Amino acid sequence: MAKRKFKMGMVGGSVDAFIGEVHRKAARLDGQIEIVAGAFSSSPEKSRKTGEALNLDSKRVYDSFEQMVEKESKLPKNERIDFISIVTPNNMHFLPAKLFLEAGFHVVCDKPLAYSLKEGLELQKLVKSSGKVFALTHNYTGYPMVKQARHIIKNRELGKVLKIIVEYPQGWLVKTIEKEGQKQASWRTDPKKSGISCCMGDIGTHCENLAAYITGLELESVCADLTIYMPGRKLDDDGNVLLRYKGGAKGVLHASQISFGEENGLNIRVYCEKGRIAWRQEEPNYLLVQKENTPLMTYTRGSNYLCESAVRGTRLPAGHPEAFIEAFANIYINAVDTMRAIDEGRKPTELEKDFPTVEDGVKGLAFVKAVVENGFNDNVKWTKIADVFKS
Amino acid sequence: MAKRKFKMGMVGGSVDAFIGEVHRKAARLDGQIEIVAGAFSSSPEKSRKTGEALNLDSKRVYDSFEQMVEKESKLPKNERIDFISIVTPNNMHFLPAKLFLEAGFHVVCDKPLAYSLKEGLELQKLVKSSGKVFALTHNYTGYPMVKQARHIIKNRELGKVLKIIVEYPQGWLVKTIEKEGQKQASWRTDPKKSGISCCMGDIGTHCENLAAYITGLELESVCADLTIYMPGRKLDDDGNVLLRYKGGAKGVLHASQISFGEENGLNIRVYCEKGRIAWRQEEPNYLLVQKENTPLMTYTRGSNYLCESAVRGTRLPAGHPEAFIEAFANIYINAVDTMRAIDEGRKPTELEKDFPTVEDGVKGLAFVKAVVENGFNDNVKWTKIADVFKS
Amino acid sequence: MAKRKFKMGMVGGSVDAFIGEVHRKAARLDGQIEIVAGAFSSSPEKSRKTGEALNLDSKRVYDSFEQMVEKESKLPKNERIDFISIVTPNNMHFLPAKLFLEAGFHVVCDKPLAYSLKEGLELQKLVKSSGKVFALTHNYTGYPMVKQARHIIKNRELGKVLKIIVEYPQGWLVKTIEKEGQKQASWRTDPKKSGISCCMGDIGTHCENLAAYITGLELESVCADLTIYMPGRKLDDDGNVLLRYKGGAKGVLHASQISFGEENGLNIRVYCEKGRIAWRQEEPNYLLVQKENTPLMTYTRGSNYLCESAVRGTRLPAGHPEAFIEAFANIYINAVDTMRAIDEGRKPTELEKDFPTVEDGVKGLAFVKAVVENGFNDNVKWTKIADVFKS
Amino acid sequence: MAKRKFKMGMVGGSVDAFIGEVHRKAARLDGQIEIVAGAFSSSPEKSRKTGEALNLDSKRVYDSFEQMVEKESKLPKNERIDFISIVTPNNMHFLPAKLFLEAGFHVVCDKPLAYSLKEGLELQKLVKSSGKVFALTHNYTGYPMVKQARHIIKNRELGKVLKIIVEYPQGWLVKTIEKEGQKQASWRTDPKKSGISCCMGDIGTHCENLAAYITGLELESVCADLTIYMPGRKLDDDGNVLLRYKGGAKGVLHASQISFGEENGLNIRVYCEKGRIAWRQEEPNYLLVQKENTPLMTYTRGSNYLCESAVRGTRLPAGHPEAFIEAFANIYINAVDTMRAIDEGRKPTELEKDFPTVEDGVKGLAFVKAVVENGFNDNVKWTKIADVFKS
Repeated sequence: MAKRKFKMGMVGGSVDAFIGEVHRKAARLDGQIEIVAGAFSSSPEKSRKTGEALNLDSKRVYDSFEQMVEKESKLPKNERIDFISIVTPNNMHFLPAKLFLEAGFHVVCDKPLAYSLKEGLELQKLVKSSGKVFALTHNYTGYPMVKQARHIIKNRELGKVLKIIVEYPQGWLVKTIEKEGQKQASWRTDPKKSGISCCMGDIGTHCENLAAYITGLELESVCADLTIYMPGRKLDDDGNVLLRYKGGAKGVLHASQISFGEENGLNIRVYCEKGRIAWRQEEPNYLLVQKENTPLMTYTRGSNYLCESAVRGTRLPAGHPEAFIEAFANIYINAVDTMRAIDEGRKPTELEKDFPTVEDGVKGLAFVKAVVENGFNDNVKWTKIADVFKS
Repeated sequence: MAKRKFKMGMVGGSVDAFIGEVHRKAARLDGQIEIVAGAFSSSPEKSRKTGEALNLDSKRVYDSFEQMVEKESKLPKNERIDFISIVTPNNMHFLPAKLFLEAGFHVVCDKPLAYSLKEGLELQKLVKSSGKVFALTHNYTGYPMVKQARHIIKNRELGKVLKIIVEYPQGWLVKTIEKEGQKQASWRTDPKKSGISCCMGDIGTHCENLAAYITGLELESVCADLTIYMPGRKLDDDGNVLLRYKGGAKGVLHASQISFGEENGLNIRVYCEKGRIAWRQEEPNYLLVQKENTPLMTYTRGSNYLCESAVRGTRLPAGHPEAFIEAFANIYINAVDTMRAIDEGRKPTELEKDFPTVEDGVKGLAFVKAVVENGFNDNVKWTKIADVFKS
Repeated sequence: MAKRKFKMGMVGGSVDAFIGEVHRKAARLDGQIEIVAGAFSSSPEKSRKTGEALNLDSKRVYDSFEQMVEKESKLPKNERIDFISIVTPNNMHFLPAKLFLEAGFHVVCDKPLAYSLKEGLELQKLVKSSGKVFALTHNYTGYPMVKQARHIIKNRELGKVLKIIVEYPQGWLVKTIEKEGQKQASWRTDPKKSGISCCMGDIGTHCENLAAYITGLELESVCADLTIYMPGRKLDDDGNVLLRYKGGAKGVLHASQISFGEENGLNIRVYCEKGRIAWRQEEPNYLLVQKENTPLMTYTRGSNYLCESAVRGTRLPAGHPEAFIEAFANIYINAVDTMRAIDEGRKPTELEKDFPTVEDGVKGLAFVKAVVENGFNDNVKWTKIADVFKS
Repeated sequence: MAKRKFKMGMVGGSVDAFIGEVHRKAARLDGQIEIVAGAFSSSPEKSRKTGEALNLDSKRVYDSFEQMVEKESKLPKNERIDFISIVTPNNMHFLPAKLFLEAGFHVVCDKPLAYSLKEGLELQKLVKSSGKVFALTHNYTGYPMVKQARHIIKNRELGKVLKIIVEYPQGWLVKTIEKEGQKQASWRTDPKKSGISCCMGDIGTHCENLAAYITGLELESVCADLTIYMPGRKLDDDGNVLLRYKGGAKGVLHASQISFGEENGLNIRVYCEKGRIAWRQEEPNYLLVQKENTPLMTYTRGSNYLCESAVRGTRLPAGHPEAFIEAFANIYINAVDTMRAIDEGRKPTELEKDFPTVEDGVKGLAFVKAVVENGFNDNVKWTKIADVFKS
C-alpha cells in the first residue's frame, strides 16, 4: 500500500555547503520524502539561489529559519512541512530545533547535538515535552553491518564485552587550510561555531556513539590526551582517549584530523569473552565476526543470515555495494516511519525507532566535555562522565 | 542556476521486480529527475499498485506501454514525460523502445540491448533516424574509478595494452532456484525471455562492455567454452572465453552464475607495456595503478589527482564510500544532461555523452552471439565477431 | 628420539644461481639435512668457489656430476650422500637424475621434470625400477594451507568440483632482459635449455600441478592461446588455457611473464556444488573457505581446526607468518622422511609421502606439450592430454 | 669468499619449548651458524634429550649453563662456541648472560632483556666493559619492510613525526590456560619468572621497540591503563597506553593477550607532516607509504627501490614471501657479522650493527616499569620514563 510522502524543510545546506546536499540525497533516495521548503543560509540571497537550484516553489524559500517556522506553521496541514532538517554549524542547532519543536514539527538534526552540553540538556527537555520525533544524524549507525554488529553483541552470541578499540583517523586538517578560506575547516576550527572542540566534537563523538550503539555499554570515565598540532589553532585537531565502561569493559578511542593521508577511517573492534567483531567504514558492506571454535568469518550485507534490522536497512543484493548515502538514508527512513507512526497515533516498532536520539546527543556532548576537560589537564587522570553534568 | 527537472516514465519495474527500483533510486538521487508515469507491468493490476506505491497521479499509470506512449504523446509538452526508462526482461526491450523513439521520446534501456542481434541492429537504425538519446545501463561504467581507468589507458600513461583479464563470478544459480519460482531466475533461464544466453547475456556482456570501455579496444575474435551445469537448464550458466583484440592484445573473460558463494565479483585487470591497472566492483572506490619505476598505487575516489570524468561522477569526499546506486545514477545524469543539450539545441560535451549507447549494445549482442555459436561447438576454435553479423 | 641427519649433494646451484640457494635454505631449516657435496656448475672453477662459500670439504666438491656420482659411490655408506638435489636448467635434469638413480641414490629434482615428455617418461621407468625416492619440487604444494585445501576437497566437504580458476601472473619478462644478460631470463627463453616452452613450462606447470594436487582431478583436454609478446623470443611468454577435466569439471588457467608489475601471483579458486575455496601464494597463511549456509571463512595456518597434513607442515603458531622457504622445506622433509622409511625397510606413511613425484612430473610435461601444440594452432580447438603421449 | 661458520651454544630451548626451536631455525637458515653445544634445560635429562634430537656431540650437551661456560671456556679456541644464545624465561636471562660475557663469549638473548630494570642496567655495564657483542632478539625489527620504514622516516622523506599508533593484539590468554598446564602461559603469568608484567613485558615491549626503531624518537612519558582481565592472574593481560615523545610527537600503544581471535597482530602506523607509513606483522612483505601529492603506495619486499638495509635482509625475489623466521635470522646474521668484525679487529659497518642492543633492552625494561607503575595507579596521570631510573 502507498505510504504518504513526508514533506521536509531545511535549515542550512546552501549550494556551497557539503553536508546539506548529503542530507538531501539521503532524503530523496527512497522516494518517501519530498523537499519542499528551506531557509538554506543566513544570507537570504544564498537561500534563494539554493531554492532555485532545487526547483523549489519560491514561496517556500525563506530568508531565515524564524520566518520559515512562522510561515510554515500557517500553511494548511497537508501542505506544510512535516519535519525540519537542521544542517547548520554546531552553534546553530539549538535555536532552530527549539523553534520548530515548539511549533509542533518533528526534527532531524546533524550532530553534534548542540554547541554545549547545557544547550543539549535543554533540548532534551524540549523534545520530551513536545512529544515530537528528534533524530540525530550519527549516520554511521545507519550501516546495515553496524546494525548486525549490535545484534550479535546484544544477543550475547559472543559473551560479555571485554575491550573496545574505536578509531576515526582523518588527514584533511594536517595543513591549516582554514587560513585559505576552506569553508568547512573555517567553522570547524572556530570555537564560536564549533564549541569547545574541533576533532573530538566532530569525529570523536562518532566513535563514542558507534561504540555505544554496538555494545550498549555506558561510558563511565575517560583519560585523554588532546593535542592542537597545527600552530594558530584554538581547538584540538587530534585526541587519544582511554575508556572505562560500567561493568568493567575498557577501551581505546582515538580520532585525528592530522593523520596524513587518512580519509574517513572510522573503524571499531569489539573483543568479547567468546568472540570478536570488527568493522570499517571505508568497506562498510563487510563485518568480521569470530566465534568460539570457528575461523574468522566475513559477514556480507545482503546475506540471508543477517538480523531484521540489517535487512530492513538493505536495498541491494550482496555484492552490489551500498555505502554512505544509503546509511544516511536509513536514519531518515526510520525517523520518518517513526513520525508516521506517531502522526497515526500508532506506537512505532523497535525497528522503526532504530535511529540516534536526543539522548544519544546529550551523551555525545558529555563525552566531549569530559575529554576536553581531561585531555588538556596533565594532573587529573580519570574524569567521570557523571561529573561533567555537575559543573 | 536551476536546471529543469526531467520527467521520467517507466516500462516495467513493478513493485516485486528488482532492477526497476534500482533505476528509480538512481534517478531520484540527485533531484534532477522526477518519476511521473509508468506502465509497470503487463498486468494492469500490478501496474496500478506500483503507481500507488510510488505516489503517482493515477492518470499517469497505464495498463500497457502501448497505451502509455499514446496518452503521453497527447499531453502538453511541459507535462508529458521527457524520456522512458525500459526495465523489462530482454524480450521486451525492442518493442517499447521502438514505439517511444518513434513518438519522439528519449530512451534509457536496461542491458542487454535486445532479445537478438537482429533486433539490436534494427534499434540502432531507429535511434539514428530519430535523433533521440538512447542510453543503455551498462551501469558499471558509471563508477568514477572505472572512468579513471579509461582515462589512464586512453592517455597512454601505461603504453600499449597487452593483456586483459575480466571476470564476473556469481553463485546465485548454483541451485535451480528457477524451479522454486524465484522470479529473476525464472526469466533469466528462459530462452523465450532471455534469448540465446543466460550467463553470457546477463553478465558476460558486462565484462565485454567494461573491457571495451576501459581499453577502447575492438574485439576481433573469441574462443569459448560455455557450460550448462545445472540439469534441466536450456541456456549457459557459465562460460570461459579467450579473447583476441584488433592490434594484438589478448584476454581472458570468464563469467559464471554457478560459482558458489560469489556475489557480484566483476573485476578487471589490464596489463600494458609500461604499467597495469586493476579494479573490483565490490570495492569500487579504489583503483590499483602501477607505472614504470613506481610501487603499486591505490587511487581513491574523491582524490585531487583524478580526471574530469571521474570527478564529475563523484558526490562525496574520499573515504566516504559511494557505490552501486551512484554509479547507476551517473548513467542517468549524463544521459539526462545530453537530452537537455539536445533539447536546447546545444551540442553535448564529451563529459555529458559519457554513457553506454545503442552501438555498445549492438557490440554486446554480437559478442553474445559469437560466444554462444563458438562456445557449444568443439570444432571451431576461433569465431570472428565480424562474422556473426553475416549470419 | 634423534633422527639421523641426511646427507645431501647438489648438481647445479652455483653461487650466482637463484634457485640453488633456495633449495639449500629449505634443506637447512629444520636441521635434518646436511649439505656435504656438490657439482655446483659445469665450470669446475665455479663449482669449487661455491663449495668454499658453503664451507664444504674440498674433496667433496666435484668438477662434474659424472665425477661426483662415481666418487660418492665409492665412499663408505655412512659417509656418502644419501640423496642428490638437482637444480640445473631443464635440459640438465635427465642425465644426472638417471646416473644417480642408477648408482642407488635418492633424488630431489627441480621442476619441470625434464626437457621433454620423452625424457620424462624414461625417467619415470628408471625411478620405478630403481625403487628409489624421487621428489619433484613443485614447492607450492608444500604450503600448509594448500594441503588443507586438498583435504577439504578430498573429504567432499564441499561436494563435487564444478569449476577451477588457476592463475600465475608474473611481470619480470615484460622487457627483454635476456638481451642484457640476466642469467635466469637467458636460459628460460632459450629453447635449447628450456625445451618447448618458457612461460607454460616454468609457471603454467605450477598452475596445473596445484590444481591437480588440490582437486585430485585428471585433466582431459586443453584449448589454449599462447603468445610470444616480446619481439625476438622463440618461446611463449604468456598463455591462456581453457581446461576440461574428466568427470565434467571445467577450468581456466592463465600464466604470464609479461603481466607488468605482477610478482608471483599464483592463486587458485575452486568452486564446488556446496562451497568454494580460494588461496593466494603471496598471502599463503590464509585459505578462504565457504560452505553451505555459512559466511566466507578465513582459515589461518597454525589453527587447531586444520588437517594432519597441514599441521605436520607447520612450524610456528598462527599469526607468525611462514612463507616460501618453509613450503619448500616441507617437500624436503617429507621426501627425506620417505627415504628414511625406505632405508629402514619401513613403509612410508601417507603423510610422509605427501610430495610431488615423477608421475606428477610426467603429467606436467604432458600438459606443456598439449598446450604448446594447441596454443599455437588456430585450427584445433581441443587437444586431449592422452593424445600427446602418442605422438 | 668463504666466511667461517660461527659456533653457537644455547641456554634453554629444550625440545618442548617454543622459542628455542625458532632461534635454531633462524640460526640454521643461511648456513653461517652451526649449533654445537647447549644447556637446554634446568633438567639435565631434558637437556640430554634435546642434544640427542639435535644430533649434537654428547660431550657438548651440558647439565647446566654454569657447567657449560666452564667447560666451553677450556676448549681450544677453534672448537669452542663463539657465542651463546639465551632463550630461557625472563628470570633466567641475567645470570647466564653475565657468566658468558665474563668468560669472553658474545651473547644473543631473547627479550625482554632481564627480569628487572635493575638487572638490565647491571647487564648494560657488563656488556660495555666486556667489549662483546650483545644482541637482543626484538625480532620484528629484522623484517626488511620495517627497515625500509625506518629508512624513510630517518631520511626525512615525510617530514617530522606527529603521531604513532602501535598495537599488538593477541587472544591466546583469553582463557586461563595456565591452569591447564600450558607451558608458555604458565611462566608468562608467573611473576617469579616473568617479573612485574605479563602482557606489557612480553608484547608491549615489542610495540615500544618497534616504534623506537622506526621513528628514532625517545619516549618521554606514559599514561597507562593496565588490566588483569582473567580471574586469578597476578599480572596484566592487557594494557592501553598514551605516549608522549620528546620533541612533541604523541602516540597510542595497546597490547593485549585477551583480544579473542587475534593471533600476532603487531602493527604500526606513523603519521608525519608530509606523509605516513603503515606496516603489519601478519603481512610483513608489504609497507604502505603515502607521500605528499601521491596516492597510497604499497612497497613490496624484494623491489628495486628499497634501501640497502632492507635489501641486505632479503633472500627471495618480490612475490615469494618471506616471513617470521627470515626476520629472526636477520638479527642473527647481523649479530654474527658484527662478532666477526670484532673478532677480526675490524669496525662493523652500520648495516652489520643493525640489530637490537642491550641499550634497547634497558629502554624496554624502563618502559615496562613505567607503564606498570602508572597503569595500576588511578591518581598519577603521566609517568616520566626518566623517573623510573631513580626509584
